[in-house]
Amino acid sequence: MIEATLSPATRAATHPLERLDTPTLLLDADKLEGNCRTMRERMDRHGVTLRPHVKTGKSVDVAQRALGAAAGPITVSTVREAEYFYDHGFRDILYAVGLVPQKVARLAALVKRGARITAIVDSVEAAHGLVTAAGAQGIDLPALIEIDSDGHRAGVRPDEARLLDVAHALGGALRGVMTHAGESYNCTSRNAIIAMAEQERSSTVRAAQVLRAAGHHCAVVSVGSTPTATFATTFEGVTEVRAGVYVFQDLVMAGLGVCSVEQVAISVLASVIGHQHDKNWLITDAGWMAMSRDRGTANQAVDQGYGLVCDVAGAPLGDLVVSDANQEHGIVARRGGGAIDFTRHPIGSRLRVLPNHACATAAQFGEYQVLREGRPTDLWDRFGGW
Amino acid sequence: MIEATLSPATRAATHPLERLDTPTLLLDADKLEGNCRTMRERMDRHGVTLRPHVKTGKSVDVAQRALGAAAGPITVSTVREAEYFYDHGFRDILYAVGLVPQKVARLAALVKRGARITAIVDSVEAAHGLVTAAGAQGIDLPALIEIDSDGHRAGVRPDEARLLDVAHALGGALRGVMTHAGESYNCTSRNAIIAMAEQERSSTVRAAQVLRAAGHHCAVVSVGSTPTATFATTFEGVTEVRAGVYVFQDLVMAGLGVCSVEQVAISVLASVIGHQHDKNWLITDAGWMAMSRDRGTANQAVDQGYGLVCDVAGAPLGDLVVSDANQEHGIVARRGGGAIDFTRHPIGSRLRVLPNHACATAAQFGEYQVLREGRPTDLWDRFGGW
Repeated sequence: MIEATLSPATRAATHPLERLDTPTLLLDADKLEGNCRTMRERMDRHGVTLRPHVKTGKSVDVAQRALGAAAGPITVSTVREAEYFYDHGFRDILYAVGLVPQKVARLAALVKRGARITAIVDSVEAAHGLVTAAGAQGIDLPALIEIDSDGHRAGVRPDEARLLDVAHALGGALRGVMTHAGESYNCTSRNAIIAMAEQERSSTVRAAQVLRAAGHHCAVVSVGSTPTATFATTFEGVTEVRAGVYVFQDLVMAGLGVCSVEQVAISVLASVIGHQHDKNWLITDAGWMAMSRDRGTANQAVDQGYGLVCDVAGAPLGDLVVSDANQEHGIVARRGGGAIDFTRHPIGSRLRVLPNHACATAAQFGEYQVLREGRPTDLWDRFGGW
Repeated sequence: MIEATLSPATRAATHPLERLDTPTLLLDADKLEGNCRTMRERMDRHGVTLRPHVKTGKSVDVAQRALGAAAGPITVSTVREAEYFYDHGFRDILYAVGLVPQKVARLAALVKRGARITAIVDSVEAAHGLVTAAGAQGIDLPALIEIDSDGHRAGVRPDEARLLDVAHALGGALRGVMTHAGESYNCTSRNAIIAMAEQERSSTVRAAQVLRAAGHHCAVVSVGSTPTATFATTFEGVTEVRAGVYVFQDLVMAGLGVCSVEQVAISVLASVIGHQHDKNWLITDAGWMAMSRDRGTANQAVDQGYGLVCDVAGAPLGDLVVSDANQEHGIVARRGGGAIDFTRHPIGSRLRVLPNHACATAAQFGEYQVLREGRPTDLWDRFGGW
């Protein structure tokens, strides 16, 4: 009640986030744990293994919350991720980017220390390369065949003759099939995502059937993306689901209806560094170096610019967005223009910005400032590089 | 002569870059030094001080080459940059992002150790904040008034009455004026850049005249951007020029005619990890995590996608570009479509990708793999964070 009588600037100065340097990457641990729990419970209900993609968090603290355990099956996208998570006690690692022979030596070093690494390939050439390189390193390197379920990127279509050629080239290394329905990010309705999830599932299950019918071993049927994992109505025939960004959620996911804006767990704390009264712009110190250059909502129904602007407590400020960004400058304006009440945002006051794409924004930082009940508690490291 | 008789794959395997992990950020030191020398000599001819912006390289090795000396005047955009360069022997530092009071304590720590830091402000509120915070820290913190020469971002227009108000608020801290013609990046001809350079110069000089006519001290008249620094025909009345990206150059600068593609000093070494024959795509391991999400050429006459693809020696491969990017996957296609000769790009072979925006791509890496005469020699660290 007393707070309501204070000026905005005075009230803001009482918030504990006003004492942090900016820009800083904030991680609301309560939201993180809620997002993680929701996905774990969903996968439990469907009876499939959750193999979270740790490329989003690049942090042992985040991965442990995704699994609800000290370690467990994970998906990685770089050799550095495999090494880091091995060093933090993770053993069951799917390296889910097409393998090339020159990366086998570093993976072999982990295998020789006890890691159970599975690779993926989508061509006879890559399969031969894997078998040869693994043999040269003296390790078994099991592999999944990447299936193209949506024309999005990589993989073998389940109806292509070369599916069996790749299986043959892998020989005893073959363990199963996997796909990633990246096109689910371009869906425009919940029903479209449900249909994409079914296409992802059925394509991959069909590929497994083709392989088994030809006498191949195909124990693993792995699918996943955050949208399809969230909305799939069945995982029949699927053994594991991979997803990454759901741990944080972001504006792209909110635009898809996968989450609400309130569930987005990361944000960038920024300072107002300037006012451009004539243009109705606030200038902040969170430019693209902090937000990343990701414009993932540009083609969604609601374009959030470089991020949706919230007050220091995390509540969205109507239609304020980061409308443009330079390296260390964010330009904050109303979506579509409109007057800004500059007295609410004095020089030096703080804002929080929700990101388009959590993976890209988090990658701009070396640590998470963790919040509990909105207050800063811990710092969690995150790593980069390959 | 013998090399010409080898198959492409065999020839490629003999290249020293074939032994590096991918993705890796390559820096051609010969091109870097050429770009730096050209700009230094140009500024020497015009009799103005060059104060390179070290946000591009974030590396003492790069900054020393920009200056042609162990240290010298620099421009920074973060407090971390100021701290790092102070620790590497740099003393004369312009912090060229609007100052907010909460950043003064860290700058004051440097000033007390002997740094000569100059700040910038563009409002009475920020000027009062600076004077008060510097006083509280017991330091002198001189400042320039940021001038808006092009409507691009921040600053006071030279004809605004508040220019004198800001000067008055700064009092004895006032040292001069500065601007950055960020709109020069949106020019579409050399003549347009020349005109923008003259607008940048004349606006800033005019602001200095207004201040001096009112009895204010205005020793510094600081302008700059790589395009305007490259094409300005006169710097009359200007005391120093700031520019950053010219040290590396990039595809945006090449699209502006500021440099040739051959002068771009940084590139990302990638591996071909897949072939999509039906779509005429090569898949590489250099996605947006390596290239950044920057699409700075999207609105130029030639859209380079996420980067222009070169062979391992750095020669562009016609119109091959990174047409799309996921986190750890680059999709390489001909600009506008067209057949790819997959036999030239076997799985595991290397490519080099020139970036749209050197500042953004370099920021995705923690080090530079330095090349001399095309061969890997040193590793130079670069830093991130704020």
